[in-house]
Amino acid sequence: MNLDALYSELTLKTEAKLALVVLDGLGDIAPPGVDSATPLEAAHTPNLDALSKSSAQGRIVPVAPGITPGSGPGHLGLFGYDPLEYEVGRGVIEALGLGMELKAGDIAARANFCTLDAKATVTDRRAGRIETEVCEDLCALLSKNIKKIGDTHVMIRPGKGHRFVVVFRGKGLEGPLTDADPHREGAPIPKAVPVNAKSMKAKKTAGVVQQFYKQALPLLAKRKPANGFLMRGIAHQPDIPSFEERYKLRAACIAVYPMYKGLAQLVGMEKLEGPQTIVEQFVKYLEARNDYDFFFIHYKYPDMHGEDGNFEAKKQAVEEFDAALPVLLQNRPDVLAITADHSTPCPMKGHSWHPPPILLNSAFSGSDKLDRFTETGSNLGSLGVFESKYLIRQMQANARMFDKFGA
Amino acid sequence: MNLDALYSELTLKTEAKLALVVLDGLGDIAPPGVDSATPLEAAHTPNLDALSKSSAQGRIVPVAPGITPGSGPGHLGLFGYDPLEYEVGRGVIEALGLGMELKAGDIAARANFCTLDAKATVTDRRAGRIETEVCEDLCALLSKNIKKIGDTHVMIRPGKGHRFVVVFRGKGLEGPLTDADPHREGAPIPKAVPVNAKSMKAKKTAGVVQQFYKQALPLLAKRKPANGFLMRGIAHQPDIPSFEERYKLRAACIAVYPMYKGLAQLVGMEKLEGPQTIVEQFVKYLEARNDYDFFFIHYKYPDMHGEDGNFEAKKQAVEEFDAALPVLLQNRPDVLAITADHSTPCPMKGHSWHPPPILLNSAFSGSDKLDRFTETGSNLGSLGVFESKYLIRQMQANARMFDKFGA
Repeated sequence: MNLDALYSELTLKTEAKLALVVLDGLGDIAPPGVDSATPLEAAHTPNLDALSKSSAQGRIVPVAPGITPGSGPGHLGLFGYDPLEYEVGRGVIEALGLGMELKAGDIAARANFCTLDAKATVTDRRAGRIETEVCEDLCALLSKNIKKIGDTHVMIRPGKGHRFVVVFRGKGLEGPLTDADPHREGAPIPKAVPVNAKSMKAKKTAGVVQQFYKQALPLLAKRKPANGFLMRGIAHQPDIPSFEERYKLRAACIAVYPMYKGLAQLVGMEKLEGPQTIVEQFVKYLEARNDYDFFFIHYKYPDMHGEDGNFEAKKQAVEEFDAALPVLLQNRPDVLAITADHSTPCPMKGHSWHPPPILLNSAFSGSDKLDRFTETGSNLGSLGVFESKYLIRQMQANARMFDKFGA
Repeated sequence: MNLDALYSELTLKTEAKLALVVLDGLGDIAPPGVDSATPLEAAHTPNLDALSKSSAQGRIVPVAPGITPGSGPGHLGLFGYDPLEYEVGRGVIEALGLGMELKAGDIAARANFCTLDAKATVTDRRAGRIETEVCEDLCALLSKNIKKIGDTHVMIRPGKGHRFVVVFRGKGLEGPLTDADPHREGAPIPKAVPVNAKSMKAKKTAGVVQQFYKQALPLLAKRKPANGFLMRGIAHQPDIPSFEERYKLRAACIAVYPMYKGLAQLVGMEKLEGPQTIVEQFVKYLEARNDYDFFFIHYKYPDMHGEDGNFEAKKQAVEEFDAALPVLLQNRPDVLAITADHSTPCPMKGHSWHPPPILLNSAFSGSDKLDRFTETGSNLGSLGVFESKYLIRQMQANARMFDKFGA
């Protein structure tokens, strides 16, 4: 039997409340030495420390050993969807990041304005890095004039600087297409063509993209340096089985940043809007506790400061999180997992492959007898090192949602 | 998407130098008691201790839980080739061990002289354990008289005692064949036949083997007790994607014993000849550092003494290695892994399934804050217990050879 089928078959409906709290980019690496510390280790975290004493710990591998995930695969993995099976294109991620509402089958592309010469050769791939306001004007111009191509709706959303996103919504569309981007200057914009030449849907999609170029380029003709545009990562939103189908859990997302709301929405979670701080997010959880079975709570700042290589700021972000934690614990979830989508070590100033630590607390997690929640401590935990796609299964088990397998 | 395809797609070319140092059979098991020690734990290892303070540790499973690997699967696993996917016949391993240069498609067989009675019944499977010199004479006799069978070249190489290896090189050959060995006395030599009855290439190969017997047996007729021979593990060298194809790393092997050179050569590593001691091996690395991206350095003695059950000698072998380590560190590889192909516990006097410890050092390995490199300590490391086929992927990640996966 297939493992997912087994989990499904064993799943019972319970009253348990589960919460997955993601400290984005939390994991870090310690400098050389036996007395060195990561930001999490250096932080003053009395509330996490207290929680740790009744929790299990371990480390999770987001995608596979050595693979550094972006936010998309990182979160899909946490949500229990194998990131190698459910590939989400760059266009879809960008659209979600701009807060666009996508449906399964929508085609999304990352786009940016560029400069073309009289022979339609790309002379500047970033159109002299035009200001965001110029980009917004140009997107408004395109939006006003191109609403539909055949039976396909066109949605355009400006991003920062020269960047924007185009979404095509219609019947019988499919990606991925190759990039309409020469990836260098001095060449014309190539046509986007189906990666799988046999797909009739991708062929239709390529036709829509060509029509879009045919209608859009004349509108930009006099807008030099932004008289052209490139499109990349053109793909459809995959049809992902919803969180509720997969886990029999009604799920809500309490995030601040659009990308994470979008990723939650990809798997059918409901977005609870409003909170801007981690305290407000936890208050929102308290308010909505009766309405859902599962809460995904996303805290962005450890990642942000890790990207900057700012140890002190990352440490403080952890301390702010810790100070807010008692609000969540006022009505403690029956199963609480605290972890990260990936590590963002300060010395690397970027995402990394290092398995983030995970803390799992429930009436049945057992205590690993660790007095803190840290990278080094989590190495000693009873959960060991496991693939993040099993995390929600572990949470379900702790919620006693699985019947016994066999007699 | 397939995981290997993902690794491939994300691989970047860098200037990093990687070194995989294999202390053959290093892993051991501690005797009863909480104060007991393995040879590695009992050894005085100031240089490994110092390295450990800036390294990550873990344990690797060579093939699968409970499987005791031979040198072939042990090293293929370390090199990142799933030993279940790339099966290398015993004949091929023996040929490599005797220093024969094989090509993909060559058929190799382990052979040994035996005694036949007048009815061609095997009466002694080892021909009274004839001396190596006699074996060499007989192999020379066969070599001189049988150079080709049809369009297939025949190469014969004597081993120790009654053992030798036969290699057939020609077009359209394929293994495996069943053994030309009754595996007991009192029976005739069975014909080697294709394991896969539908393979035309294996049928041709079986014909070549039969012809070989037809020509060889009369030459031996008067050489009793060595008037016959048995052939086992008859198979072709598989077509293995080269190390450079797989990892985009130009690889060199610095080993002393022919078998390990042969295994490295199987995956397309270049052999750097000359060194006889571990100090000389490290000096060779220093000399060749600019010419390759990856170095496989093989140290045989922990295994050898483990096979003898000689705790003291195994401990000393580790200490000699440790004393030599500063030579390697004079120009430290950017990524250094120190581990074993398998454990060879002294109490077992042989290879075992126990996961060997692994130490991984790079600017991005992080420190697991362990003050020694030992079996017990490695249990506390951030790498956890993982399959050895991921080791080079971990090394590549530490060399920053992987682009981020997804946005």
